[in-house]
Amino acid sequence: MTLADRWLLPEGVDEALPEQAAKIEHLRRTLLNLHESWGYQLVIPPLLEYLDSLLTGAGSDLEIETFKVIDQLSGRLLGIRADFTSQVARIDAHCLKDEGVQRLSYCGSVLRTMPAGLDGTRSPIQLGAEIYGHGGVESDVEVLSLMLQTLSVAGLSNLVLDLGHVDVVSGVLAACDLSADQENKLVELYKAKDLPELDRYVEGLDGLRADQRRWLVGLPRLCGGKEVLGHATDLLGGVNESIQEAIVLLKAIGESISQRFPDVGLHFDLSDLVSYSYHTGVVFAAYVPGHGNAIARGGRYNNIGQVFGRSRPASGFSTDVKALVALTDVVVSKPKTVLSPVCSSDGLWQKVNSLRAEGYRVVEVLDDVCTSDADFQLKFVDEVWQLLPLQN
Amino acid sequence: MTLADRWLLPEGVDEALPEQAAKIEHLRRTLLNLHESWGYQLVIPPLLEYLDSLLTGAGSDLEIETFKVIDQLSGRLLGIRADFTSQVARIDAHCLKDEGVQRLSYCGSVLRTMPAGLDGTRSPIQLGAEIYGHGGVESDVEVLSLMLQTLSVAGLSNLVLDLGHVDVVSGVLAACDLSADQENKLVELYKAKDLPELDRYVEGLDGLRADQRRWLVGLPRLCGGKEVLGHATDLLGGVNESIQEAIVLLKAIGESISQRFPDVGLHFDLSDLVSYSYHTGVVFAAYVPGHGNAIARGGRYNNIGQVFGRSRPASGFSTDVKALVALTDVVVSKPKTVLSPVCSSDGLWQKVNSLRAEGYRVVEVLDDVCTSDADFQLKFVDEVWQLLPLQN
Repeated sequence: MTLADRWLLPEGVDEALPEQAAKIEHLRRTLLNLHESWGYQLVIPPLLEYLDSLLTGAGSDLEIETFKVIDQLSGRLLGIRADFTSQVARIDAHCLKDEGVQRLSYCGSVLRTMPAGLDGTRSPIQLGAEIYGHGGVESDVEVLSLMLQTLSVAGLSNLVLDLGHVDVVSGVLAACDLSADQENKLVELYKAKDLPELDRYVEGLDGLRADQRRWLVGLPRLCGGKEVLGHATDLLGGVNESIQEAIVLLKAIGESISQRFPDVGLHFDLSDLVSYSYHTGVVFAAYVPGHGNAIARGGRYNNIGQVFGRSRPASGFSTDVKALVALTDVVVSKPKTVLSPVCSSDGLWQKVNSLRAEGYRVVEVLDDVCTSDADFQLKFVDEVWQLLPLQN
Repeated sequence: MTLADRWLLPEGVDEALPEQAAKIEHLRRTLLNLHESWGYQLVIPPLLEYLDSLLTGAGSDLEIETFKVIDQLSGRLLGIRADFTSQVARIDAHCLKDEGVQRLSYCGSVLRTMPAGLDGTRSPIQLGAEIYGHGGVESDVEVLSLMLQTLSVAGLSNLVLDLGHVDVVSGVLAACDLSADQENKLVELYKAKDLPELDRYVEGLDGLRADQRRWLVGLPRLCGGKEVLGHATDLLGGVNESIQEAIVLLKAIGESISQRFPDVGLHFDLSDLVSYSYHTGVVFAAYVPGHGNAIARGGRYNNIGQVFGRSRPASGFSTDVKALVALTDVVVSKPKTVLSPVCSSDGLWQKVNSLRAEGYRVVEVLDDVCTSDADFQLKFVDEVWQLLPLQN
């Protein structure tokens, strides 16, 4: 490795220098305080765990994203977390035996083997919240509200909320008697939103009834404002009961969110298949204009704790503090800076420490390089240490 | 993996549940604020880097402790940091081109392949500070003072500070014309503090003068209070100039620290070989009674930035926030808790949010499980939402 190479960080890995780090720390504190004021308690899951624990309930997406190392002590595979959700589910299932509703929040680094999305980061600082033990629309609305409030407190406006429900795609596919290969191909086309190719593919499928063809082709066209829910009822209302229930749920969630956050744009996308495959109900993502990637996402994922011995309804969201800082103008107030000689007397040492306790930033001057952004200097005048203003 | 196994965390890896997590977060904020009040600016280095960068300047100890993964994108080896120091040195050398003194602080998770010390943790939350660009005793004293202040603010008392200097051992060994094997064996015996075996081994070495034997055997006996420095001058004063300078430096540091922290016990150990091998000057560690491992440690490590193109004097220390929380009684003040019905009206939603902004923790009641630690409830009385005290 040459000298220049040593400076380089791996692709998708970044560091925060003082100015940006102060913003990240400020926002982290502000948002964790917000979550606490909503009753969400901080937990700190470990950075690495047995791989089996970490991937529990999640699909192969997460497995591919997770860095793996071998544990020298046990010989077993460990994973560096790429996502907090299964860790927090383990904590709810195993460590916190409360029967009632449990609200947990978290903030920390995660690592991913491959850059995600257009931002291309592999080392986000993930911040999120999860609610356990309640399966009704109220907890979906609560988590969504907290997500929108989080983004708003971070300084984002003109938010667009994307809402979907995993039962819609799975219900339509189940009602069409397709082979696994055919289902996978359709899921791929829905994810890519490749409508011309979808139309050709469905036309080529044998043995489908006309209404089944209409469902498969119409599904990805069910995206837009709240009128979409009416069209969905017309097109898919007869497919099965769980699709009907999903549409009713989305309508109720949309109404509550519109009431609480009248400025947030609502967008429904019934073929949306975002996120990891642990989701079981509503899924959602928040977008800001001019930024292609979702800035926060989440959804319901009931029963993920089952493998840990406790099956509970759950809903949650997460965002990336570094991405939030990049998108907003976080203003961090700077303390007044005082220059002091090296504290070689007890009197000066006491004075410096009491100024620090009062909120000043006191820097001992070790060399003669001028610190241009200082506000005061400490000088020994009339037998006492005095704080004198500096002209900049 | 059975159900019970899934609950287990790897050896030396732990998680923090709400009560402990609140303490860790509180202490983290308090200590980073302290560092800021001393002029140390927060940086956030990445969790993983190219292995070559991460191990720069450090010896094989750190290499063995570092988890390695292969980067799918570049095919190169990456390391999950086991220590912050070389990362912060890279930031000073590469990103912050200030000529003057640079003060940086950090806090974050590190991972180690093997449990360290008697605590046996592999996932500390490392918090530390580094000062660059000054090679004199003042910066050693500043970093040591900040370390002791950090521990004191965290709630520790009866601290003992262990001071040593890497030039003493290396000077004595260099003055004895030994083979590399012999030097390694002696270093091993000094590390183990195995004095009887050391005496036997030195007796068996051929071709040494009597004074060389006295140096080798006497060195590890140079530990204790400040009288040790006088004994060291008597025994080793004639070995070479750098040992003389090291003794003078330790004396000056000891006097400054005693003046600033009269309650801290001073202990000198001139054969101390703690920490990673990047140290080049004074090395130090802080202990508390009844706890065998150092609770914080550090030292001078000049020129570590050289491989990054910028050779600068440097000194720093680090500690583990989780270990601090385990040793102290961190008291976190809890906000007043308010129970609210689900916010289905605009009036209640506004009221709840203004209470949250005022510092209350407001929890929407989603089920009928009683929350016993709440202080107030919101009730709609006389046409307004009112905060009524709850009898517990």
